[in-house]
Order: sequence, then structure tokens, then C-alpha cells
Amino acid sequence: MTGSGQTMHNLFSCTGDNEGKLNATRELQTDSLELARRRFRDELVEAQFLVPMGIDGLYGRGGVFEQIVEGIDRVVCRKGQAVYGSRPTCLRFPPLLTREAFEKTDYIASFPNLTGAISTFIGDNKDHSALLADRDAGRSWDGHLSPAGTMLVSSACHPCYATLPSVLPASGALLDIYGYCFRHEPAVDPARMQAFRMHEYVMVGTPEQAQSHRDSWVRYGLEVLRELGLEATDTPANDPFFGRLGKLLATNQLDENLKTELTVRLYDELDDGTAVVSSNCHRDHFGSTFGLSTATGEVAHSACVGFGMERIALALIRTHGFDPRSWPAHVRASMGWGDEAGRAGV
Amino acid sequence: MTGSGQTMHNLFSCTGDNEGKLNATRELQTDSLELARRRFRDELVEAQFLVPMGIDGLYGRGGVFEQIVEGIDRVVCRKGQAVYGSRPTCLRFPPLLTREAFEKTDYIASFPNLTGAISTFIGDNKDHSALLADRDAGRSWDGHLSPAGTMLVSSACHPCYATLPSVLPASGALLDIYGYCFRHEPAVDPARMQAFRMHEYVMVGTPEQAQSHRDSWVRYGLEVLRELGLEATDTPANDPFFGRLGKLLATNQLDENLKTELTVRLYDELDDGTAVVSSNCHRDHFGSTFGLSTATGEVAHSACVGFGMERIALALIRTHGFDPRSWPAHVRASMGWGDEAGRAGV
Repeated sequence: MTGSGQTMHNLFSCTGDNEGKLNATRELQTDSLELARRRFRDELVEAQFLVPMGIDGLYGRGGVFEQIVEGIDRVVCRKGQAVYGSRPTCLRFPPLLTREAFEKTDYIASFPNLTGAISTFIGDNKDHSALLADRDAGRSWDGHLSPAGTMLVSSACHPCYATLPSVLPASGALLDIYGYCFRHEPAVDPARMQAFRMHEYVMVGTPEQAQSHRDSWVRYGLEVLRELGLEATDTPANDPFFGRLGKLLATNQLDENLKTELTVRLYDELDDGTAVVSSNCHRDHFGSTFGLSTATGEVAHSACVGFGMERIALALIRTHGFDPRSWPAHVRASMGWGDEAGRAGV
Repeated sequence: MTGSGQTMHNLFSCTGDNEGKLNATRELQTDSLELARRRFRDELVEAQFLVPMGIDGLYGRGGVFEQIVEGIDRVVCRKGQAVYGSRPTCLRFPPLLTREAFEKTDYIASFPNLTGAISTFIGDNKDHSALLADRDAGRSWDGHLSPAGTMLVSSACHPCYATLPSVLPASGALLDIYGYCFRHEPAVDPARMQAFRMHEYVMVGTPEQAQSHRDSWVRYGLEVLRELGLEATDTPANDPFFGRLGKLLATNQLDENLKTELTVRLYDELDDGTAVVSSNCHRDHFGSTFGLSTATGEVAHSACVGFGMERIALALIRTHGFDPRSWPAHVRASMGWGDEAGRAGV
């Protein structure tokens, strides 16, 4: 999942006499949307749901916010259980993957601006003195660091492909993955965090298995969101590929209908929807770069559905309010909040 | 907490005629310990508790391993609840903190070799083409990246200090923090992971509040481990400070009795203990660099206890075996595993 919160921009594509007027309206609405996002962020901070860490898009999470995320995950897990029983292999990755695996995702070609590379200090005493001398003089000390062989995880599923057998079983590989992701896109918009969690179900197998996984999770995803009392819409989408070539890749992704986002309007008519879930078919992209083949020797296809945990939490707060104790009873029950939950602030 | 797994090295400090013989014995035991660690890692991989990611110290966690970690956390949380009720402020940070906050921890001076700095791509199309040209030619593309303003979290508590009010209330600030930490120390030893989780209770306040927090958590920590059926010992310890100056800092830390580790022997007599919990007094280090003062205007002191979740899980597996279903009933009960847990492999 590479969720891209859409804006009113998309709605304006006409040209001609009215262009000036429309541009003015658009600017006004963009300003209003930015204002609404900033206000929502301030409210989240005021309520101690999010704790600013000193840079846009990076927040500590308060206890109630975490319980909302845990409640959402109960609903996601129950759906996974209903669909697959105990079939999925559970994998929980740390927020890092190897440079080698990262290279195979091709992320540096498609989304270089979102990437996070890790470097560290590998020198001796003398090198360290030089680093500290630069630091003491107020100069950058990054030049004294070297690549650590790791990268931040960009999408929760990225680390899984390198752990799979090169020939998959006939039933494919079905994985349940949950972890922190990083995207370098500092923003005031609380739905655009630099570090956030994604719960994914991933299928790697035949083209049919991948496509069917993708398609069925559009429906299941909508069911999860409905259970949470959220009004969501499924929309064909594209990832925010970088640069000139990126435009082509995005168009291609849309044309081939590879990515569907489930969006929720967080700001009424100002906002035509923020993606909170994304169901994607990667075709043979990862199968090819990670050298994975089906039981019959074809290049494996893959698909994943990603639940953006923080974004769903934000959608719940916008929809049901800042006090989870007053949320609809059926939503609270779905999230596993019984009578004892009130004591813990939910 | 900066847990440093101790080895037999510490036991040999004599000199003289027997030195040669002792050196030989030491080498043999060090080899045996390394072998035992490697064997344990292989067993953990075989049991699908850990999934190798292609670089030492980086693993995916299987479902049963995660449930062990969750069970441990129930015991830790119950102790926190018993001691403090609902007083601690719950904060869950992402695995990153700002460069500015990181600078104030002084970690780059003390542990540069463990550090993880994040860089990203901030260039345009042309810069990206240059990056991709280097990549296509098999050259390093790190030179095309720029610092992202963030660092990996080295100790779970590090991000919290920058979020505190500059003047603390009379009761101090009491925090419950749980998150991923990063230390760049690739190793075969499964207890030495590059990415691992730490659950901490942190106190920032007067010197007495900090010292008392440190001291009481040595006892509470031992109680948590006893509840898990682990035989632990409390040991004065020091952090692995880097370089020549580091030796001095380490000696100082030991002399002033600022750090106590709770250690469990994972390899019988080969191993004199792996630190699984650490209770530390930072004195005025963070209070001073983060500009925090007590209600009466003194520089604040701080202390934290850190539970190394993966290390405790490894200690449980070494102590009680690879099948949690056969662990002692009182341990299972403590970890919250009722009758239904068996279905989930615990």
C-alpha cells in the first residue's frame, strides 16, 4: 500500500473562460483544506492523542490513541480469521530491511523522495575525534558515517519477499504482516505521517491467486470499515511515482486497475477522500526481482491489502468524535471494548 | 537501558604463570559460547520463531515468538499497574526521533558505532537520473542522499525527554514507554539484535525520585522475571561506551553504581549472564541537555528501567523449552495464556 491522500485538485480539470474563476475557487478550497488539517492536528495534540516530536509527521502516540489502533486491529484480525482461519503465516518485521532486499523492491527508482537509508559510524578513535570536532564546531557530522546495510521499511510487506522459498507451494504463500513503515514526506496533515503502521495480508502465487486476493480484499476491506462505522468508497488509484517517468508509471497503474484505495472523507466537502486501506496487485514485479516462482515454474505474482492503522484511527476520530466512550455501541463492541474499557479512557 | 551481554571474559582477570593455560581455556570457552549461540539461533530459525532477513541481527518474528513477547508484556504491565495504578503517562513512539533530540542524548559521542542516521533523496529529476545511473553501473548511490533530520531510536526512552514540559510537576513525570530500538551491532548471538523492543518505565524529577525509581525497579524487575520462572541475578553494569574516553565513562558508571542489569544465564556455565532488564539512573544528564527542571527549579534527574522484550523471550525459551504449551502452568497463567491459547501455538 502506498496511500496517497487525494485532494480537491483532482476535481478540477476543465479549461477555458472559467479557468481563472475556478483557479481562485480551487486555491480557496486548498487553503481551507490545509487549515482544516492543521486544526485537526492541533485538536489531536490537545487531546494528547498525538504528541509532537519536533518535526512534521513524527508523533508519539498517547494511550487512548494506541487503544484505538488496537481496537481497529481486532476488527482487521477477525476479518482475516473469518476469511482464512489459521492459514496465514504470521510475520512481524522490525522497521528495517536489508539494502539487498530494498534494492529488489525498486523503491529507490520509483519513490526515492520517500526513502530512508541508514548509516552508522564504523571508524576508530581518530575518526571519532574528527566527527566530534565537526560536531563541536556546529558542522554536519554525517560525512563521517557509512552505509549500515539497512533501509527503513517503506511498505510493511517489503521485507517478506526475501524470506519466501524460491518455489512456492501450489496454494501460494499467504502472509499476515504488521509493522512500522517510513515515508519521508513531512506534512502538517496528520494523515501524512513519516512513520506509521500498516497491517497487511499478502498473497504470492499464481496470477489468478494474486488477482483474486486483490479483488476480494476490496470487499473485505469495505466490510471492516463498515463494521467500524466508517463511510468508505473504493476508488481506482495510483502510487505517487517520482519524476517524469513516474507520471507514465502512475497512468499505467491506473489503466491496468492494479491499485484500489478505500477512502474516507475526513473533511466533508473539502476533501474527496483520504485513503485508509489499499488493495494492490503487483503482477510479477516482486516475483521477478526476488526470483520467486509458482509450483509450476512460472514467475510468481503477488498482491497485498494494507490497512493504514493511524489513518483509520484518524477517520474514526473525525467520524465518531474525540471521546471513544461515546462512540456507537456496535463500533465499541466490534473493537473489543467491554465495560472495563471505560477505565482506560476508551 | 543499554544491555551488554556479558561473557566469560569478565571472569578471567588473574595474571602470572598460569596465564597461558588460562588464555587457552578462555579461548576454548569463548569458542564454545559462540558455538552455543549459533546453535541456539539455528534452533530459533528452525522453529520459525525467528526468520532470517539476510543480515546478522535482523529477523522477522514468527507468530508464536510474538505471542511470547505479548505474554511477557502482560506480566510487565501488571507490575507497572500494581506499582503505579494508572499514574504513568503512556507514550508509544515510532522508531525514529529528530536529529535535534538525538543530539541532546549525546549518543553520537558515547555510542557512535551503534547509531543509525536516516538519509533520503531530496533532489530533482536530473539528480535522480544521476542516482539511477550510479545504481545501474553497480556503484553506491548513497552520495546522492541527504540527511532526513531523523535518527533511529537507540533506547526507547530517548524520544520522551523532548516532549516533557521544561518545568516538571512536584511529583515528577512518570512515563510508560514501549517501542523499537536500533543498535548497529551485527552478531550471530540471537540476544544481540540490531532491532529489538524495550518496555520502559521512566521517572524524571528530583534526584531522590530518580534514585528511588532506579532502586525499586531492580526489585520489581526481579519479581517480574521470577513470575516468568526465570532465575535472574542483579549485577552492577556499565554501558559499552566507545573508544578511549569510553573506558573512563564506563568505570565511572560502575563506580557510581548508576546501572544495574538483571541477567539470566542462557548457556549454563559457558555464560555468566545475559542482561534482560536494566535499571539505570542518568543523574542530571538528560535534565541538563533537554533543559528540564524540577518544580523547585533544580536541574531534573532521570532514571529508567528497560525490559528487553526479545531477550526475555529468548531466556524463556532457553529455560522452559521451545514448546510454550509445555511451559510451567504458573508461567503460562502469568502470561495470560488460558485454555484457548493452545490453538494459537502457545
